[in-house]
Amino acid sequence: MSRTVIHGGLVITASDEFHADVLIEGGRVAALAAQGTDAAAAWSAERRIDATGKYVIPGGVDAHTHMEMPFGGTFAADTFETGTRAAAWGGTTTIVDFAIQTMGRSLREGLDAWHEKADGNCAVDYAFHMILSDVNESSLKEMDRLVAEGITSFKLFMAYPGVFYSDDGQILRAMQRASDNGGLIMMHAENGIAIDVLVEQALAEGRTDPRYHGDVRKVALEAEATHRAVQLARVAGAPLYVVHVSADEAVAEIAAARHKGLPVFGETCPQYLFLSTDNLAEPDFEGAKYVCSTPLRPREHQEALWRGLRNNELQVVSTDHCPFCFTGQKEMGRGDFSRIPNGLPGVENRMDLLHQAVVDGHISRRRWIEIACATPARMFGLYPRKGTVAPGADADVVIYDPLAVQTLSADTHHMNVDYSAYEGKTVTGQVETVLSRGEVVIDRRKYVGRAGHGAFLPRSTCQYLG
Amino acid sequence: MSRTVIHGGLVITASDEFHADVLIEGGRVAALAAQGTDAAAAWSAERRIDATGKYVIPGGVDAHTHMEMPFGGTFAADTFETGTRAAAWGGTTTIVDFAIQTMGRSLREGLDAWHEKADGNCAVDYAFHMILSDVNESSLKEMDRLVAEGITSFKLFMAYPGVFYSDDGQILRAMQRASDNGGLIMMHAENGIAIDVLVEQALAEGRTDPRYHGDVRKVALEAEATHRAVQLARVAGAPLYVVHVSADEAVAEIAAARHKGLPVFGETCPQYLFLSTDNLAEPDFEGAKYVCSTPLRPREHQEALWRGLRNNELQVVSTDHCPFCFTGQKEMGRGDFSRIPNGLPGVENRMDLLHQAVVDGHISRRRWIEIACATPARMFGLYPRKGTVAPGADADVVIYDPLAVQTLSADTHHMNVDYSAYEGKTVTGQVETVLSRGEVVIDRRKYVGRAGHGAFLPRSTCQYLG
Amino acid sequence: MSRTVIHGGLVITASDEFHADVLIEGGRVAALAAQGTDAAAAWSAERRIDATGKYVIPGGVDAHTHMEMPFGGTFAADTFETGTRAAAWGGTTTIVDFAIQTMGRSLREGLDAWHEKADGNCAVDYAFHMILSDVNESSLKEMDRLVAEGITSFKLFMAYPGVFYSDDGQILRAMQRASDNGGLIMMHAENGIAIDVLVEQALAEGRTDPRYHGDVRKVALEAEATHRAVQLARVAGAPLYVVHVSADEAVAEIAAARHKGLPVFGETCPQYLFLSTDNLAEPDFEGAKYVCSTPLRPREHQEALWRGLRNNELQVVSTDHCPFCFTGQKEMGRGDFSRIPNGLPGVENRMDLLHQAVVDGHISRRRWIEIACATPARMFGLYPRKGTVAPGADADVVIYDPLAVQTLSADTHHMNVDYSAYEGKTVTGQVETVLSRGEVVIDRRKYVGRAGHGAFLPRSTCQYLG
Amino acid sequence: MSRTVIHGGLVITASDEFHADVLIEGGRVAALAAQGTDAAAAWSAERRIDATGKYVIPGGVDAHTHMEMPFGGTFAADTFETGTRAAAWGGTTTIVDFAIQTMGRSLREGLDAWHEKADGNCAVDYAFHMILSDVNESSLKEMDRLVAEGITSFKLFMAYPGVFYSDDGQILRAMQRASDNGGLIMMHAENGIAIDVLVEQALAEGRTDPRYHGDVRKVALEAEATHRAVQLARVAGAPLYVVHVSADEAVAEIAAARHKGLPVFGETCPQYLFLSTDNLAEPDFEGAKYVCSTPLRPREHQEALWRGLRNNELQVVSTDHCPFCFTGQKEMGRGDFSRIPNGLPGVENRMDLLHQAVVDGHISRRRWIEIACATPARMFGLYPRKGTVAPGADADVVIYDPLAVQTLSADTHHMNVDYSAYEGKTVTGQVETVLSRGEVVIDRRKYVGRAGHGAFLPRSTCQYLG
Repeated sequence: MSRTVIHGGLVITASDEFHADVLIEGGRVAALAAQGTDAAAAWSAERRIDATGKYVIPGGVDAHTHMEMPFGGTFAADTFETGTRAAAWGGTTTIVDFAIQTMGRSLREGLDAWHEKADGNCAVDYAFHMILSDVNESSLKEMDRLVAEGITSFKLFMAYPGVFYSDDGQILRAMQRASDNGGLIMMHAENGIAIDVLVEQALAEGRTDPRYHGDVRKVALEAEATHRAVQLARVAGAPLYVVHVSADEAVAEIAAARHKGLPVFGETCPQYLFLSTDNLAEPDFEGAKYVCSTPLRPREHQEALWRGLRNNELQVVSTDHCPFCFTGQKEMGRGDFSRIPNGLPGVENRMDLLHQAVVDGHISRRRWIEIACATPARMFGLYPRKGTVAPGADADVVIYDPLAVQTLSADTHHMNVDYSAYEGKTVTGQVETVLSRGEVVIDRRKYVGRAGHGAFLPRSTCQYLG
Repeated sequence: MSRTVIHGGLVITASDEFHADVLIEGGRVAALAAQGTDAAAAWSAERRIDATGKYVIPGGVDAHTHMEMPFGGTFAADTFETGTRAAAWGGTTTIVDFAIQTMGRSLREGLDAWHEKADGNCAVDYAFHMILSDVNESSLKEMDRLVAEGITSFKLFMAYPGVFYSDDGQILRAMQRASDNGGLIMMHAENGIAIDVLVEQALAEGRTDPRYHGDVRKVALEAEATHRAVQLARVAGAPLYVVHVSADEAVAEIAAARHKGLPVFGETCPQYLFLSTDNLAEPDFEGAKYVCSTPLRPREHQEALWRGLRNNELQVVSTDHCPFCFTGQKEMGRGDFSRIPNGLPGVENRMDLLHQAVVDGHISRRRWIEIACATPARMFGLYPRKGTVAPGADADVVIYDPLAVQTLSADTHHMNVDYSAYEGKTVTGQVETVLSRGEVVIDRRKYVGRAGHGAFLPRSTCQYLG
Repeated sequence: MSRTVIHGGLVITASDEFHADVLIEGGRVAALAAQGTDAAAAWSAERRIDATGKYVIPGGVDAHTHMEMPFGGTFAADTFETGTRAAAWGGTTTIVDFAIQTMGRSLREGLDAWHEKADGNCAVDYAFHMILSDVNESSLKEMDRLVAEGITSFKLFMAYPGVFYSDDGQILRAMQRASDNGGLIMMHAENGIAIDVLVEQALAEGRTDPRYHGDVRKVALEAEATHRAVQLARVAGAPLYVVHVSADEAVAEIAAARHKGLPVFGETCPQYLFLSTDNLAEPDFEGAKYVCSTPLRPREHQEALWRGLRNNELQVVSTDHCPFCFTGQKEMGRGDFSRIPNGLPGVENRMDLLHQAVVDGHISRRRWIEIACATPARMFGLYPRKGTVAPGADADVVIYDPLAVQTLSADTHHMNVDYSAYEGKTVTGQVETVLSRGEVVIDRRKYVGRAGHGAFLPRSTCQYLG
Repeated sequence: MSRTVIHGGLVITASDEFHADVLIEGGRVAALAAQGTDAAAAWSAERRIDATGKYVIPGGVDAHTHMEMPFGGTFAADTFETGTRAAAWGGTTTIVDFAIQTMGRSLREGLDAWHEKADGNCAVDYAFHMILSDVNESSLKEMDRLVAEGITSFKLFMAYPGVFYSDDGQILRAMQRASDNGGLIMMHAENGIAIDVLVEQALAEGRTDPRYHGDVRKVALEAEATHRAVQLARVAGAPLYVVHVSADEAVAEIAAARHKGLPVFGETCPQYLFLSTDNLAEPDFEGAKYVCSTPLRPREHQEALWRGLRNNELQVVSTDHCPFCFTGQKEMGRGDFSRIPNGLPGVENRMDLLHQAVVDGHISRRRWIEIACATPARMFGLYPRKGTVAPGADADVVIYDPLAVQTLSADTHHMNVDYSAYEGKTVTGQVETVLSRGEVVIDRRKYVGRAGHGAFLPRSTCQYLG
């Protein structure tokens, strides 16, 4: 069995920070030893990686990506190959992508299609959630089978009528089923029925620019749907995970539910923490780059999100990575913001942006690892393999340089998309070296991995409460 | 340097659980290795402790004890010697006790007296908070000096007029000073001025039994003082740690403050989680055994406390260990509940009772360690030495048998007090072996420690937000 | 012009109580004079009514009745003739009934049908709200016309999918239109889509008794819909009137909205204040008598409703009078609670039950008049004609005996239904004499009115904020 | 008996508006008759006042004035003679002034002193609250006697240590007593102990300008004291009336208490509704004109106060009239804001400013009368004599011209003070004629009243809940 020692670094987990050497045997973390101890000194290894002055952290777990996702007649621009490679570049060693049930078809069919897309193509490990587009007796039964084979979370949409939308009865049934089979319901919480009225009215009145995307998808309608999802989950006796929370009032709904003791969880994304409606209002249709749903919000919402992350009112930061090129894709919506493909690139930027939040004083180093690695692993049943650096865990390890300064740009990023949502932003901190199950994927900022290294991860059910 | 290996156990920290062997060199944890790895197999050691089937957890940190505390003309019955020995029996390897400033005297004088009581007598490590009984220009200046020498937290009382009570102006000044010097203000939050009116009225009306202690110290007056302390801390720009939170409404005040982003923390104690006014109402003056302040509350408050602990609205469980014998001490209050010395024994029971909460499903194993070890260590500046099992940490380690069944009783406990607050209660889980800085103190339920092993711990300032 | 003097009574309005004689000229209140003044002594009149020891109050305004309403293949048992006569017996001199748009048909057609039912048949004055069953471009335009002709309020249903249900887009559009034309949206706030799932599940599991009607229509689903309606109204910039609020959590949603300054109003009904799920659980299918939606709630909700009425979190008490005979109508639901026609009789009992609430100390006398007469008149644009005893107002006046004791019973009531929801309940207070526009309708507990006296009242828009 | 008819006006009460002539016999309202009726036409009278195009409203009730109040070595500049005359000019026909217990002296002595100041000097009727400066066994007993003689409300201070301050025990005792004897506790809710620390620190740092008065009296410390007063009242089982509420967070505390069903009431004053810290910051010591406690707040608090008034979270608007001349009085605080006498003139401006609020759309006309006349009368036991225009009520009637435009100024006002807090502000609406118990005091803007007309009003206990 090959042995690797990472020496000299500061290991950071969700709860601890300590100067220790890390011994990897095969694909797993075998041991941690305090620097300078006899134990550490005794280790021999084929490979020694010097992490002096660096952080040694668990590989990131991005629980929300959409590789090659069909949307509005086009596809998200990153394949599993390009997307997972970019993830690796950004220090993320596990993604959980969304397989999609097509209306009128089985979950199985959708899942098979996603396996096919991913199989043999991934640079790092991956798992799947399942999007339920058509909740009915048959798909409810299939949920049980999917849980059994490691697809343990199911996303529902209160938005996008006619596409992914489920009505409250379907949502309630799916939640009841999840309550029985241990699945976790993930919710896109926006009142899409009401939003579609506002979209139609905006377009009819000639308000067609990207900024109106933000106008019509109102804070009140995110808060409303969040409250509704909480109440339905309460009736069903099921836990609830609200994806891409963007608005202060939605955070407040989640916080209120949690204060009452309900098992309700919230995820936000870097775009809501670092971008705002100011971006959506950029001239010359540039705002289209920032069109995603839930939408970017006025800048003052950011503080509520940071506070929620500090307070554990929000538990996870994922990317909702769903890139569409400006040229040819985002442009489909010129003259009609509702035709702009929804989504932003981000899988490569998450760990860095959250480290910048550490630098800026929004969160602590441990909380960085908790929201980006440990909690998503636990929330989605990937623990103890993923999300921590501990004996026995998968050796998904990142050597992170906390002092390196980099400028984010489409010129230098590795995502397959022609713009960066953070173009020109300078951040402190950079991924230096990345291991996935003990194999080096990024070596001092060179990609040395390979498509197909990444394996499918069947997941257990939500461990976050356990 | 002596080496010890603890093998075969399940290591539990605030965020991780893994099967690993623990190597101790000298007084520190040197390394952790996954069981079955070459790394683990390679370790030689003078002493090997078999933890197969057991938990390997950090020694408990009890951040709230009162050894030999003077109260109402008598003294808490445990000395530092008996009290820290009992702590060790209960799996607690660090206590933070309260040195007391006497009205009209300096902090220094009080601190010296406490050092004298503890020095050379302790079985496990100890630190001190300082009780401010007399906030004035001179004692405010002394606060800075104490912070510099590792006394980094200061307790104030909104109760006990004429004894420990500070008025709101004194509280504000102390908070302002703490805001400058990094000290953490700990608050006994009860409106003692109003309570004393109710006490006087109760006694005048012949309501003298212990149960009336609970009646007069009203929930509304704990909630009131909690709210007031929060507002004063907000004005001072200081963090706030509320001790022995017992009432649902007080939890709600803390939760509301935290939701607004204020650095407000709450501690509760096992007595509030497991006992109630039913105990205070026990006949034949037996209720006196349960007289403490804040008082025990009606049973329905317990759920709010558990929920607060799960939600991180409350962060720490300490004991407020302050034992008085029923015979001769508690009895001083026959015919006048206000003369019953306030306090319960508990330093030995905390880890077990909280493990029972794990068994009962109130909290997870990791949360057990977090609220009993990791967070108190961080809150009071003892990290990374205390509160975790990690390379470089002090080897304060407990081998805990999760399946052992024991019955709590004064017959078998080691605290120097003639009754148990939990007499006859059967719990699952028991401390088996305890190490303090690598030295075995409890060896398979035999005390093998010694007075004087325990050392004073100067503390850094609060690390909980960092 | 005929003159009537009511002398010797205590006049009570929403804000005043004074001993005054009331002079009626024609159909209007001409003057009020303090008893014993020269002014009072100077009055001559054809008719003098002695109200010594009695209250002289405005006739009640019941803003929520359903005469002859079709429901589940049958019709509410009271016609406009029997229903308005019963109203008069109960001291109510104005009803606002709900005209119904049939799915696929125009508002006009529905309104015409209701005019036809009422015209020439009513004992007291009446007005109409319009139920929107089919919100579309055409019916939205009709709303403007109806407002112009005095139908100024529109009811929408979040319950009853396939019957009255509007989706959130339809609701939003109707609210936007109301925001423009001054109409007031009234909302049946229950999540009917989710409820129908629970109904189906209950029936499938054999839970068919009336009590399960209360089980499936959950508090959480009333609170949810209330919150949703508030958020949609906020987006539309429209005021909102929530009908038949029954649950504490729904009151809390309304209170929270009002605290934020939103123009949100709430109505409750006597059945929620005096009855409970205990009634729904009565054996031998007797529970069917109490089946209405929103459903009766556990008894502990009553206190929240009373508190809301005192605090003005709720503004109006109406009856939702919709009687179905037990024999032949309610019985349609034996073996399937979902087939029980929804509704209770009550138009005759409201003023008495609310006076009992005065006797019981829940509300003051003035608040009795405010919630039962003045506010409904103002809310629905009937002021200053209705809802008060003041110079110039319609002489709809009730002589009320506050000391009479009566027992409510189907044996003695005048509603056309074979049971009383309050059978056997003894209350203090009784209507003695009733005038409608100066004509005596009830004379010392004899009905002396006539079908056709009652006139249609075109209404102005909501005056409650003005 | 002399008879007066006021004809042609729009009578407005707290709940009604109607065009009616008002007949006054002796000092009372004898009758109201709709204009154009035979009843109205039949009236003969010595005096006929034409109110065509005007409002006919009840005389204002200002429940918070401080005539000739000693403060910081000087006296409020209005005597009862000048102050009540100015009140009349402003349409206020009843004041409730604060008699003061001197520390160490009896309530009786203080009350006698106030009777002496007022007796024979007042232009309009007056009553007294009692300020409790020294709560002890003796003064508690005196409370009962005062209630019996019509002094039914008692003010306590949580501010001004060493002057009016009561500690929480004294407050609790006084509340308990009030709970027994029906008295209403009025509270100055600011944490004066904490504020005094901030005052001392500000002065020590050279922050001596008037603006720092607003800085040190923090919103958090008003909210804190409000919460504390609520909790103490809850323990005592007593109702609570919080005076001069100025801060949004204090409104929220009152609203929360009321939502829970507690009998808690709030008063605000025109200065908090129309002025702000901008005024306190006026240069050249002009800010001193606006020094009062609670202090003026940043402008954004105004909206919370208006909302509270609309929602009935606040019930009363009084003036806290306590004028000190700029020259010679306010100037005492040059170089030390803490020496500026606290208080503003306003008794003459209240009705006009609140009418301006009607014009501005903040409140309705009826709500104007409710908060300025009816509710204060009811709250302080003056109903049915004061606060309404109804048969039998005292003929305290104001003919108010809603279209007159006036500019507020010290040049034209009648208060005995050398500045106006609203200098130069133009408002729409003006008092034209004022009657007090049927006697004309202001006749088309000429003062025709006399010192000594005004009589002392013994009050019954709080009628607001009844």
